[in-house]
Amino acid sequence: MIKTDQTDRVDQMPEIDGSRDLSELLLHPGERIDDLELSGLRIIQDPAGFCFGMDAVLLSGFVQAPDGSTCLDLGCGGGIIPILMSAKTGAAHLTGLEIQEEAADMAARSVRLNGLEDRIDIVCGDIREAAGIFKAASFDVVTSNPPYMTADHGLVNPDSRTAIARHEICAALDDVVRAAAHLVRTGGSFYMVHRPFRLAEIICTLRDHGLEPKKMRLVYPFADKEPNMVLIKAVRGGRPRMEVDKPLIVFDAPGVYSREMVRDYGF
Amino acid sequence: MIKTDQTDRVDQMPEIDGSRDLSELLLHPGERIDDLELSGLRIIQDPAGFCFGMDAVLLSGFVQAPDGSTCLDLGCGGGIIPILMSAKTGAAHLTGLEIQEEAADMAARSVRLNGLEDRIDIVCGDIREAAGIFKAASFDVVTSNPPYMTADHGLVNPDSRTAIARHEICAALDDVVRAAAHLVRTGGSFYMVHRPFRLAEIICTLRDHGLEPKKMRLVYPFADKEPNMVLIKAVRGGRPRMEVDKPLIVFDAPGVYSREMVRDYGF
Repeated sequence: MIKTDQTDRVDQMPEIDGSRDLSELLLHPGERIDDLELSGLRIIQDPAGFCFGMDAVLLSGFVQAPDGSTCLDLGCGGGIIPILMSAKTGAAHLTGLEIQEEAADMAARSVRLNGLEDRIDIVCGDIREAAGIFKAASFDVVTSNPPYMTADHGLVNPDSRTAIARHEICAALDDVVRAAAHLVRTGGSFYMVHRPFRLAEIICTLRDHGLEPKKMRLVYPFADKEPNMVLIKAVRGGRPRMEVDKPLIVFDAPGVYSREMVRDYGF
Repeated sequence: MIKTDQTDRVDQMPEIDGSRDLSELLLHPGERIDDLELSGLRIIQDPAGFCFGMDAVLLSGFVQAPDGSTCLDLGCGGGIIPILMSAKTGAAHLTGLEIQEEAADMAARSVRLNGLEDRIDIVCGDIREAAGIFKAASFDVVTSNPPYMTADHGLVNPDSRTAIARHEICAALDDVVRAAAHLVRTGGSFYMVHRPFRLAEIICTLRDHGLEPKKMRLVYPFADKEPNMVLIKAVRGGRPRMEVDKPLIVFDAPGVYSREMVRDYGF
């Protein structure tokens, strides 16, 4: 994990002893290792903290990162998006930025677990200070699975790990979009997954920051239900014209994933 | 049809002779009368001009006009939306504004054909001058099925009747939204059908004019195809939070309308 001025290094990487299993050395008490069922990738998760959701998996499939591109994930949590993108795309280098030290440390250990240290950097830092951490316009692709809920919406404990991941405590929509617009190069793409009820704000915030919405896909749990996720791509300096994709239906019947979810996302 | 300062009265209503059929008297050469299969409603259309499409029918079903409300349709063409809304809603009064004299005249004759003169007024006038025709904030509901294409997009003949209905020659998106925002009361609703590829512009234009997008429904021709229409509701002065509806699927198979299309729209 890379140290930034904004935070301290949370954890020292253990020295690898050839006689012990790497996964054992990288795992902290209470954590588990999950198989991502993709190119042998695995991820460390903490069931008591915040585990990745379907949102991140769908975003990783929606993103198109060109071969050789440099990518940044804003608010990477346990690192699910850069790790999946390392297998799903030809990105040359991926960086994950995460404010919560525990999550960033876990992400860095998952990167090491997969032997991806050369391709993925995890940086512990604040999205609101991302302009001071990275060089402007230095990424081809920026991604984010940001907190969905406004800070005041149904919030019980603003200090909890899940609250920070789900509520706009440390980064509101405008902060995420502002950082993305600053860090992606002109002509580069920003991909985000969010909740449909905020679609109007999302679209206008993107445009306010010079990110033109170019593609959108709605995720419907069932073919006859309201969508509960929206995948959106915006291009910095793009011309107005938006492609709205066919619906992504998650389940054909309760408990039965659709063919697309099985074929493309391994559910 | 009501005369406005902007245009001349296009046609005198024929005096009804009790011994002749009303539809015969109201019909001009080349026109036909179509049965709307709803409450006995009929509409005059000109197959050589511009006939209404599925868009208008779906919009009339998406609109929720409260009982006793006053409604305005911007760019009403042959009057399909106010005529359908007269049966589908409890609106007390509906007005259709149409710039093309022939279409406005045809709409006024269709209103008379259905005996709806007390409930529907057709006004021949320009959307860009609507603020001079109607009183500000005087409608509870405003609707529009505006031209979808920018004026320069694939335009062959800018004078043709279909070109004016389909391309932004006489009214661009911003003109339509500006008029709607001016004419609808605070808390009142604006409903529009448009093309998904312009969704980002639509949402931002609405917000720029103080109309908050509150509900959206995408119309997909088939469950596995890209949507080709978007139905959107905005509320003047509404708070940000948008409901995205379940998908409206038109066909279950080629030529076979979905159950919803048959049940709710009579296809």
